[in-house]
Amino acid sequence: MKRTYTDSIKETFLQFLMKYLTLSKKKKQFISTLPMFKTFPKGSLLFKKGEFTKASYLVIKGGIRTYLMVEGNDITTEFYTETQAFIPSSTIVKTPSNCYATCFEDSILVVCTEDIEEKVFQYIPELTFICRKFSERLLAKMQLSLDMYRSLTPEQRYLHLINERPELIQRVPQYHLASYLGIRPESLSRIRKRLVQKNFRSS
Amino acid sequence: MKRTYTDSIKETFLQFLMKYLTLSKKKKQFISTLPMFKTFPKGSLLFKKGEFTKASYLVIKGGIRTYLMVEGNDITTEFYTETQAFIPSSTIVKTPSNCYATCFEDSILVVCTEDIEEKVFQYIPELTFICRKFSERLLAKMQLSLDMYRSLTPEQRYLHLINERPELIQRVPQYHLASYLGIRPESLSRIRKRLVQKNFRSS
Repeated sequence: MKRTYTDSIKETFLQFLMKYLTLSKKKKQFISTLPMFKTFPKGSLLFKKGEFTKASYLVIKGGIRTYLMVEGNDITTEFYTETQAFIPSSTIVKTPSNCYATCFEDSILVVCTEDIEEKVFQYIPELTFICRKFSERLLAKMQLSLDMYRSLTPEQRYLHLINERPELIQRVPQYHLASYLGIRPESLSRIRKRLVQKNFRSS
Repeated sequence: MKRTYTDSIKETFLQFLMKYLTLSKKKKQFISTLPMFKTFPKGSLLFKKGEFTKASYLVIKGGIRTYLMVEGNDITTEFYTETQAFIPSSTIVKTPSNCYATCFEDSILVVCTEDIEEKVFQYIPELTFICRKFSERLLAKMQLSLDMYRSLTPEQRYLHLINERPELIQRVPQYHLASYLGIRPESLSRIRKRLVQKNFRSS
């Protein structure tokens, strides 16, 4: 049988899950039938501030950008790319969202609502344990991000970003990167120039 | 039978758990026998940077302060007080800790190691679900903290702190509050003075 594009998306997700647990053929088939594999064109708004969100996301392809609007300014709070999970705080605590979420590229996402989650946990209860470990890892990541944001200078933050997520530098506009680093675009340009000069001098 | 101080500590913890699930008498007794209820005098170091940590904490009384040391400066990253849980990122991802953790008051903590956690989940499997929800709530809280840190001015952060955790202002020294808000102690003094003057003018 010919494999379709959708099959390959589902396969990517199953491969991801099977890093953490073994799945029988039956369980794989069950997961494949769930209505949670969605495509979004670049610029799609997943939700906006004030909305009650009910889903968690896993990026299969493309990426999600979350941002706040503060006195008319767009402040990027996170970029989620391939195999990263995004559980909006508003989905967890069931309050209106404080932020916006958009796809910064054409994207394929696993969109897991509470209804789907319930079905999955009933059929594959061992996933509860995996999901706890997953939430904890996201928690650790968030703790380290906050620590980093508190303790590093903007230049150090930029160097950290280059080290940890070099692909982001190519994939998102500089003004989004700047607000993510907590600086103005002009300051990011200055930092980049300074680093290029440093490299030039030391080479 | 006379209730001891230790009984009352255990009772507080059980009350906390029973907000989230029903526990039989047998299960309560099982939890009470676990070696995880510990007292720490003010100033105790729970762990330091570079250590491999293996525990999660729940504050029954007193509080934990986590901090980074950056070029000789002590930067407070979080205060955990009564009924707040602290899962160090180093415990989650099994890497050396990036921070220090100390008790800023005489404290009673539930110190839950992986061994204890395993025993608990075997005996009370429904706690796995509660713990996932708990990690997710911590994740939501951390996300909102990071968003707040990114988007508010130091004065707004201070006002937010007064609103959300008014008791902290009385319980911790001003220089720790200042580093937690990402400002110098002199700036915090200026903010406090300005706010007092504003209140004075508007009263």
